[in-house]
Amino acid sequence: MIYLDYGATSYIKPQCVKDAIIFALDNLCGNPGRGGHEISNAASLSVFNARKKVADFFGGRPENTIFTYNTTYAINTALKATYIEGTHILISDLEHNSVLRPVAKITGDSFSSYSLFDSFIELSSYDRKRAVISSIRSKLRPLTKTLVCTARSNVTGDTMPIREIGKFCRERGIYFIVDAAQAAGFDRINVEDDYIDALCIPGHKGLYGPMGTGAVIFSENGADRSKISSFIEGGSGTSSLDINMPDALPEKLEGGTLGVPAICGLSAGIDYVNKIGIENIAKKESELIMRAHFILASNKKIHIYSDFDNNQLLLFNISGKTSEESADELNKRGICVRGGFHCAPLAHKRMGTPAHGAVRMSVGFDTTTEEIDRFAETLNDITT
Amino acid sequence: MIYLDYGATSYIKPQCVKDAIIFALDNLCGNPGRGGHEISNAASLSVFNARKKVADFFGGRPENTIFTYNTTYAINTALKATYIEGTHILISDLEHNSVLRPVAKITGDSFSSYSLFDSFIELSSYDRKRAVISSIRSKLRPLTKTLVCTARSNVTGDTMPIREIGKFCRERGIYFIVDAAQAAGFDRINVEDDYIDALCIPGHKGLYGPMGTGAVIFSENGADRSKISSFIEGGSGTSSLDINMPDALPEKLEGGTLGVPAICGLSAGIDYVNKIGIENIAKKESELIMRAHFILASNKKIHIYSDFDNNQLLLFNISGKTSEESADELNKRGICVRGGFHCAPLAHKRMGTPAHGAVRMSVGFDTTTEEIDRFAETLNDITT
Repeated sequence: MIYLDYGATSYIKPQCVKDAIIFALDNLCGNPGRGGHEISNAASLSVFNARKKVADFFGGRPENTIFTYNTTYAINTALKATYIEGTHILISDLEHNSVLRPVAKITGDSFSSYSLFDSFIELSSYDRKRAVISSIRSKLRPLTKTLVCTARSNVTGDTMPIREIGKFCRERGIYFIVDAAQAAGFDRINVEDDYIDALCIPGHKGLYGPMGTGAVIFSENGADRSKISSFIEGGSGTSSLDINMPDALPEKLEGGTLGVPAICGLSAGIDYVNKIGIENIAKKESELIMRAHFILASNKKIHIYSDFDNNQLLLFNISGKTSEESADELNKRGICVRGGFHCAPLAHKRMGTPAHGAVRMSVGFDTTTEEIDRFAETLNDITT
Repeated sequence: MIYLDYGATSYIKPQCVKDAIIFALDNLCGNPGRGGHEISNAASLSVFNARKKVADFFGGRPENTIFTYNTTYAINTALKATYIEGTHILISDLEHNSVLRPVAKITGDSFSSYSLFDSFIELSSYDRKRAVISSIRSKLRPLTKTLVCTARSNVTGDTMPIREIGKFCRERGIYFIVDAAQAAGFDRINVEDDYIDALCIPGHKGLYGPMGTGAVIFSENGADRSKISSFIEGGSGTSSLDINMPDALPEKLEGGTLGVPAICGLSAGIDYVNKIGIENIAKKESELIMRAHFILASNKKIHIYSDFDNNQLLLFNISGKTSEESADELNKRGICVRGGFHCAPLAHKRMGTPAHGAVRMSVGFDTTTEEIDRFAETLNDITT
């Protein structure tokens, strides 16, 4: 069995992550922030340390770092806690359903000329790195108050010029939300340097934590955080007599009991990434992807959609087969990849693959050259 | 160290729960519902099995069982996915902030004579078991469309006549949401027999799963589920080309990647409870609480607020001390209990303890008579 679906979730977690979860289950069994006794305090301290680790990794502050169930909850929180009704939202045409769907929901809208949200890159324009700012400018309306953009597409692996977009937004008072579901742990992202108002991350992909973790990191210097409203209301461990959530972050946006064991796992996952070095991870994964491109280059039956450089993934179809058929054939041969739309119909629309989607092969730091060779050979086998 | 704060979260989890989490970390490392390969399928199957286990435990169906991050998220989901603007909500005066705060938020309101929400038991009326239905009746308005009620108070351990309230609501088309944060794993609750439209449960308390788990179980026979709107929008693994969440439960209310390891832990926790038998758990815990009452009965400096019978907790204050001072003194002597308001100001208001709250001692199945004796002796020591 060769796991090449790191884009969905990273495979067997590093030993330090498992150890941290087991330690939490054995030792941090109190409810953090709900009691003044030693066991609750130990859990609180471990959550604070994890919060600081996540914050430091992304250039933020622990008090502005909100733990969530996953990236989708993070994006929903960042969007819905800040959206002002009637305002206009711009999104890129690479967005995942975790952006597209909540944006459509809160604007009460779907794409139309009067829509309250709009995709800021024309489907025909592929060279987003040059075109993106002028494209945003052309779509801007007086009521555009929010821009949501992925840092790296989960479908194509394409990156977006986050810092340039961030600067553009900051100068115009547009709230800038970044979806780093795919980028976190591969690309260096810094909420302050990149002018991001709210950065949404998963714990279980490139940060090697367990599923069931995610976070929003709000900027200290960005948009006015006093305008953030609560999104999930509940017990906060503080200000219990107040009918509203506490005003301060992170409490305002964290209702109920946190998932301490998973959060400890995420913290250890960041240790793992820091120890290797994010640049070393990106270098190794990019080389693996380039290797796959190289082996498959001469195979005329394989159509590759994704860039060969600076990528964690390879997106392709086999001539005459749907992406599901191709993925099934690989899966049957013990190669775990994913076909279909990867929850991101916009990206497929742009690439012209809406009918069947495409197959995504995605790697992690543990992926070996031998696994890439087996994948490529198997693919060559299938197509001959 | 004696842990007597099971009301906040159950202490060191059963071995089977830890084993299930470790198994998931080692073997169920694919993203459930996101891929057709063996590893993703194994994760999907484990989630389905856990869903069925939770559903079976509460008399529901797996497809109507939604996994959430915690009870607070469960209550927010159940409320916000069904609330119709402008309608009136009734809650009991035992509700936790996880009910009070989201209800206040969605009605845009606080208690007042024109409020869109109201507490259905007069603060002076303590005998809720007889008074509750007539109290609800007196507070009913033509636009009352939702009633939220705890099954068992996290502050006093008082139970509510859920089935009677449920029947009353069902006959009038009122949406009935039950908060079983404290009751789950102690009281038998059945969504269908008890006429509950949405039952909200934690994984980490009486079901002995890890923190970071919760669920809503919707009724099959209750209110029209086609009127449930989405609450968190994102990738659903199905219907990717649709700009809306899929219509079917559980997908409609589950956005993004589920916390597979924690969910597997919850599933094993239910196995643990089933193996002992919920009645045996309730019997043992009630006996422990009764024992504490018995030992403390002659201590005139201790004021006990909670019932001695059918309870998991003992709520008290020491004459001349704030609840925090008392809790601190116990905590310093190695007895983990909690002072303050327990995130439930309404219950304290009713009991007349708003200034300082009260100390809660709460037990689990693992609590021993020796621990209860140590607790009571320490308390007697402090007060002499």
